[in-house]
Amino acid sequence: MKKKNKKVNAAILIIGNEILSGRTQDKNVVFISNWLNLKCGISVSEVRIIPDLKKVIINNILELSKNFDYVFTTGGIGPTHDDITAKSISDAFKVQYEFHEEAYKILENYYGKSKFNDGRKKMAKMPRGSKLIKNPSSAAPGFIIKNVLSLPGVPSILNSMIENCKQFLVKGSKVHSKTLNLFTVESSISKELTVIHNKYKQFVDIGSYPFFRLGKVGVSIVTRSTSKIKLQKVNRDLNELVSSKKIKILKI
Amino acid sequence: MKKKNKKVNAAILIIGNEILSGRTQDKNVVFISNWLNLKCGISVSEVRIIPDLKKVIINNILELSKNFDYVFTTGGIGPTHDDITAKSISDAFKVQYEFHEEAYKILENYYGKSKFNDGRKKMAKMPRGSKLIKNPSSAAPGFIIKNVLSLPGVPSILNSMIENCKQFLVKGSKVHSKTLNLFTVESSISKELTVIHNKYKQFVDIGSYPFFRLGKVGVSIVTRSTSKIKLQKVNRDLNELVSSKKIKILKI
Repeated sequence: MKKKNKKVNAAILIIGNEILSGRTQDKNVVFISNWLNLKCGISVSEVRIIPDLKKVIINNILELSKNFDYVFTTGGIGPTHDDITAKSISDAFKVQYEFHEEAYKILENYYGKSKFNDGRKKMAKMPRGSKLIKNPSSAAPGFIIKNVLSLPGVPSILNSMIENCKQFLVKGSKVHSKTLNLFTVESSISKELTVIHNKYKQFVDIGSYPFFRLGKVGVSIVTRSTSKIKLQKVNRDLNELVSSKKIKILKI
Repeated sequence: MKKKNKKVNAAILIIGNEILSGRTQDKNVVFISNWLNLKCGISVSEVRIIPDLKKVIINNILELSKNFDYVFTTGGIGPTHDDITAKSISDAFKVQYEFHEEAYKILENYYGKSKFNDGRKKMAKMPRGSKLIKNPSSAAPGFIIKNVLSLPGVPSILNSMIENCKQFLVKGSKVHSKTLNLFTVESSISKELTVIHNKYKQFVDIGSYPFFRLGKVGVSIVTRSTSKIKLQKVNRDLNELVSSKKIKILKI
């Protein structure tokens, strides 16, 4: 993994009617986003959830791959009729949708010749020029073409494959973060927070998120920055605010 | 709520760095999507998760409000510096960002004059011409302008407000759905599923989703259609497939 001393970003494209319909709770955004942040210094800048429709997939692949350093797709690379991600990405990039020789061998070896039926063979078809993202849990590989990395939708399988994406990514500057959990309400500190935000906004992202815990309301103040020093400074200011207002801190 | 005998769709725009960074698991998509499906006959066709950046919010509001019947936004309508949804929507639609008289009264009444500080007053500011979406749990209302409905990000508050959106929505045809949970693997039925899919694809959406339960692998076949009769027919075909292959069904 090469290192790049700058901000590197990514988009996640969740492909699947089951997520859109509310039938299934997506868990891949949290997982991929945290992994990219912590392990690669890459920030997710946009997520889209779209249906299993070829035209929609093509448009989104073209738009996101142009606007972001990387695009991670999840879902639609299995054996059934609604698995159209690989074909759609081939069409988006105007390359052949064909058997990938190595993927074919991996799957044939995994299932055995007699059980390697058409559905399973379909999982070896991908855009020409793809490189494989190996799958240690259920064999069927993901793939990368240009800056688009395609992973399966089943979280446990995706999770097992994520480390195999690293070799294809350029590392960005790590984003450090710190959270202060305060027993107060947002509107009691919003004025002072705005002052601190304006002072540091070029270097530090400050988020304010209400929470309810142990029957009490509170606010989590999350600060994020690629600079550890700036993060310390902003947290010094925040701690001064907390002391001056006599706000209790929730230690976790 | 008027009824429209046709497909009505919506997009959900989740606004918030905390979801993008993976810090917080979004729960609003599943909730809004299910509510729209079941209560309003409205299908969610796209979801986007974007950061708290005015330009990004404006572009997404303009694009989604043009392409979908309704847009639901969540997040960014609180009292702090990172709550910029109302201002951004005002800018997107080129209308004044100003105090909404009724919202101001509701909030002043809720907090009491002496505690109605600037942060709290900010929650009464919205795009000129907005109508209120009342908030029974914490007073601060959401709003609707044109086809954009803005709700808070905190799930418990959003959930308490959702019924108050109904008056602004035109009802679509209800989508019926049926799920068959089968103890088989996708690749064993993918060929036959494709045949059934091709037979019904104009009327019925068929999804195939692997699951792991009780140490066994399985596949959920989800059929969705606005026509109950077509749904029965496709499920008759699916049940024939299941019998012919001697596949066990998981009853839930």
